[in-house]
Amino acid sequence: MAAIADWQTLAASKREAVAKKIPLQWRLPSSILEHVSPTADISVLDVPRQCGLLSENELALTENYDATALVELMSSGKVKSYDVTLAFCKRAAIAQQLVNCCTEIMFDEALIRAKQCDDYLAKEGKPMGALHGLPISLKDSFNVKGTQTTIGYVSFLSHPPATSNSVLVDMLFRQGAVFYVKTNLPQSMMTADSDNNIFGRTMNPNKLTLTAGGSTGGEGALIKMRGSVLGLATDIAGSNRIPALCNGISSLKPTASRIPFKNKVPPGRVGSPGSILPVIGPGAHSVRDLELFMKTTIDDEPWEFDENTLNVPWRRVEPLSRPLRFGLIRGHPSRPLHPPVARILHAAATALKDAGNSIVLLDDKIPDLWENALLAWKYFLLDPKRTPVQYVNASGEPWVPSIKTAAFTGLAGWQATLDELWDMNVERAKVLAAYHDLVVENKLDAILMPGFQATAVPHDTYGVPIYTMLQNLLNYPAGILPYLKASKQLDEPFINKDAAYEPPYNPDAVEGAPGAIQLVGRPMKDEELIEVMKVVEDILKKAG
Amino acid sequence: MAAIADWQTLAASKREAVAKKIPLQWRLPSSILEHVSPTADISVLDVPRQCGLLSENELALTENYDATALVELMSSGKVKSYDVTLAFCKRAAIAQQLVNCCTEIMFDEALIRAKQCDDYLAKEGKPMGALHGLPISLKDSFNVKGTQTTIGYVSFLSHPPATSNSVLVDMLFRQGAVFYVKTNLPQSMMTADSDNNIFGRTMNPNKLTLTAGGSTGGEGALIKMRGSVLGLATDIAGSNRIPALCNGISSLKPTASRIPFKNKVPPGRVGSPGSILPVIGPGAHSVRDLELFMKTTIDDEPWEFDENTLNVPWRRVEPLSRPLRFGLIRGHPSRPLHPPVARILHAAATALKDAGNSIVLLDDKIPDLWENALLAWKYFLLDPKRTPVQYVNASGEPWVPSIKTAAFTGLAGWQATLDELWDMNVERAKVLAAYHDLVVENKLDAILMPGFQATAVPHDTYGVPIYTMLQNLLNYPAGILPYLKASKQLDEPFINKDAAYEPPYNPDAVEGAPGAIQLVGRPMKDEELIEVMKVVEDILKKAG
Repeated sequence: MAAIADWQTLAASKREAVAKKIPLQWRLPSSILEHVSPTADISVLDVPRQCGLLSENELALTENYDATALVELMSSGKVKSYDVTLAFCKRAAIAQQLVNCCTEIMFDEALIRAKQCDDYLAKEGKPMGALHGLPISLKDSFNVKGTQTTIGYVSFLSHPPATSNSVLVDMLFRQGAVFYVKTNLPQSMMTADSDNNIFGRTMNPNKLTLTAGGSTGGEGALIKMRGSVLGLATDIAGSNRIPALCNGISSLKPTASRIPFKNKVPPGRVGSPGSILPVIGPGAHSVRDLELFMKTTIDDEPWEFDENTLNVPWRRVEPLSRPLRFGLIRGHPSRPLHPPVARILHAAATALKDAGNSIVLLDDKIPDLWENALLAWKYFLLDPKRTPVQYVNASGEPWVPSIKTAAFTGLAGWQATLDELWDMNVERAKVLAAYHDLVVENKLDAILMPGFQATAVPHDTYGVPIYTMLQNLLNYPAGILPYLKASKQLDEPFINKDAAYEPPYNPDAVEGAPGAIQLVGRPMKDEELIEVMKVVEDILKKAG
Repeated sequence: MAAIADWQTLAASKREAVAKKIPLQWRLPSSILEHVSPTADISVLDVPRQCGLLSENELALTENYDATALVELMSSGKVKSYDVTLAFCKRAAIAQQLVNCCTEIMFDEALIRAKQCDDYLAKEGKPMGALHGLPISLKDSFNVKGTQTTIGYVSFLSHPPATSNSVLVDMLFRQGAVFYVKTNLPQSMMTADSDNNIFGRTMNPNKLTLTAGGSTGGEGALIKMRGSVLGLATDIAGSNRIPALCNGISSLKPTASRIPFKNKVPPGRVGSPGSILPVIGPGAHSVRDLELFMKTTIDDEPWEFDENTLNVPWRRVEPLSRPLRFGLIRGHPSRPLHPPVARILHAAATALKDAGNSIVLLDDKIPDLWENALLAWKYFLLDPKRTPVQYVNASGEPWVPSIKTAAFTGLAGWQATLDELWDMNVERAKVLAAYHDLVVENKLDAILMPGFQATAVPHDTYGVPIYTMLQNLLNYPAGILPYLKASKQLDEPFINKDAAYEPPYNPDAVEGAPGAIQLVGRPMKDEELIEVMKVVEDILKKAG
């Protein structure tokens, strides 16, 4: 394909079309906007409350409830979906102006839909479904009928609007969901900076100089801004968990093939013979909201609509009241934990132990994390046609800066053969066996580990995500819980003078950045992992 | 590896060692044995009853019960496992002399083990487990500690006896199973004639001139002889179902990854990046015995012992009492149904309809069966190292005759590239979508179709098994039920003068050969398929 001579103009015109969908009365004043930039060392988390665009009721609706609570209020008629939707549309519009988190805006459609939900309840005397009236935000790669799915490739700007919904979108719609925005992601989806040549860069609302993470960075930033209460991500190397830990929200990467993937737009070639599948999962403010999404989707029998979804019901499991056993992984020498992450992980482990749970140190027992991540990355390089490169070259757009930092340099130019792929699978089988045996022999309920060696870092410095790739290689479910914040003063004792921090540790740059932990469950035991996450969420809340 | 100069001697010595394990007093007289050969057009099904080696009680124990009934009798102490085991050892010894179905004989170990089961019951007052005292036969590819696993490769004769059990063997052992024989299979496991240069050829007990099928032909013949009441097979292209339909027993190929595969000996390279997995399943005399195996194994949480087994419990489903909906596939023009198969399939469909069920014709709605089988076969050719060829060449043994008939000639010399593998996966995805949509749109409970275009056919003429490969390509569970027999007289009206039967239809050669039908369920709904099979088993029994 020939390059598009005026791709910049095309991209600018798309941005303008999206921007126009924000009503004039929801625009922030230039007194605020003039301070907003990827080099501004400020938090914008308070702007929605300060800017005066949201009523007290709208502030309450967007700040005081999780999705589960909102659905209860709307299903009982105490609150109208229209009001909730309007509040989240407004707040998403504010977030968009501050952190550039949205790709598609569907406010008009959403308000009509919300009204339908309210009318349905009034007429039928019962809610539409388990998500009655709930606004849900979507990563751009989901198809919503009538809206474009460009996933940040300039060459995809020529694609017409989607003519049908992704299967999951259809399913959630039937349960009463309201779709109002799609959100930003990186060019090619294979870097942790949500930056592309159509929509530009999403910033971290906690601190605009930091990355919002990726590839579902738009969701992470929007949910943290409380411009969304529940959003949908994908994850093949950490794309759901990285934005969660960068922004400070909760998220879940389920076991593969439990949530229907059909009719989404992929960033590369379909038909991969690799052993790692992309996984859809939710981002939210509470573990029970993660459960609400999983339970609602799987109870609705997604295998009826997507032949690649496993025909396995959502099991009802009892809340956990016994002491739990956690494996603890504290990192790999090639990517030593930055002081805030070391402190926060230590604090979490201590809180779990103090609450009567057991901790089993796994550092010396696990296969080499770096080698595992390298193996996982190879599975992402199996396409001899290099389809994402073709998608980029088709328009003549350049690569975004972070791409070169987000790959294993040792694999530059590497191309698998079919023969090597057999050996890779044998290698993966060994890792699988090792973790299986560790979990079984130590009777672990979950593994506690970092999601990344650092908190959110300055733009374009995230590097390779070895702490989130492991769970994709294993196909183990994994969740992120936010916990504490980076603090120069508290982190100082955790500085290891001998450690080669990568990326460099800059206490001032990350001051106040959210902390997080990662919890890893057993394959197909997403139900049990959620119960473990509830217990941990509770303990960490109490520990403060 | 250099060829083994005297491989024939080595193989003969192995056969002799196995033969020696049949006690002298269990040997058949030469008056019977002199009539036994692959060219003898006789049934040997009556020999166990006629030969006088089995007592009336032993005949009753081996003929009058299924596994479920035997376990009940043994668990309640009404019958001793020792007596049951002895009866099946004797009968397996007889079968071995008639149809050459066994590879390894473990009678001594089995009788000691049976005694242990009886003692346990006497001492503890409760059965050892859900398979208390039950003799179970195993395809040779299972590892049993202390016994060799050669899987019919002469070069594997140098392997020492297994030092540990296959995971499944261990699990069944804990449930009270008694292992007493391993059974024959084809060189490379990739043909439907169970023939190799160590153990020779297994014959069909219904008619020695016919194939016993493969790759689990030893099981098929042994179970039909009632030398086993429950046996374990594997299936990647029909290896469990082909012997079932050839010999006239019931079998189930479950969804992949529900039954643990760990620590079995594979006929080729491990680490395949293909989309088709080998599957373990049972062969038996009743559907409830197939269920007994599935339920017992999965209830015992195989995922605790094998990291590649899906962590998905066995669901309790209600017996079906409503009318069912069956899709009906009547074949592909390239492999038209032989008259007996056409008649028997028609009779089965009519019986189902007469019993109040619906039949939906699918012939014109499904993707091309031949093309699908060709695609499936390509997945078996993904190893650039051609490991099975290396295993054969390592000893200098020749290929068995059926190998050349059991492959797609168009694929001779074909070697996939990694790039083609992507395209193959896209092709497979289309087939998967097509069947999914047909099943969902027509609300099908199962698909009724032939397991092969013919009944058992003369040795080395089976050809490519397109009617069993489909379910492996789809990863749909599928079962075989025996029904009726080939009959020149009854089949005559079903002869299509224009059909190019492949292999040729020879009414005399197959007279009296068992008939069968195949039932195909939905992935991960093995539980529901078993209930459907129970209903059909019942209807076919009544229809006669």
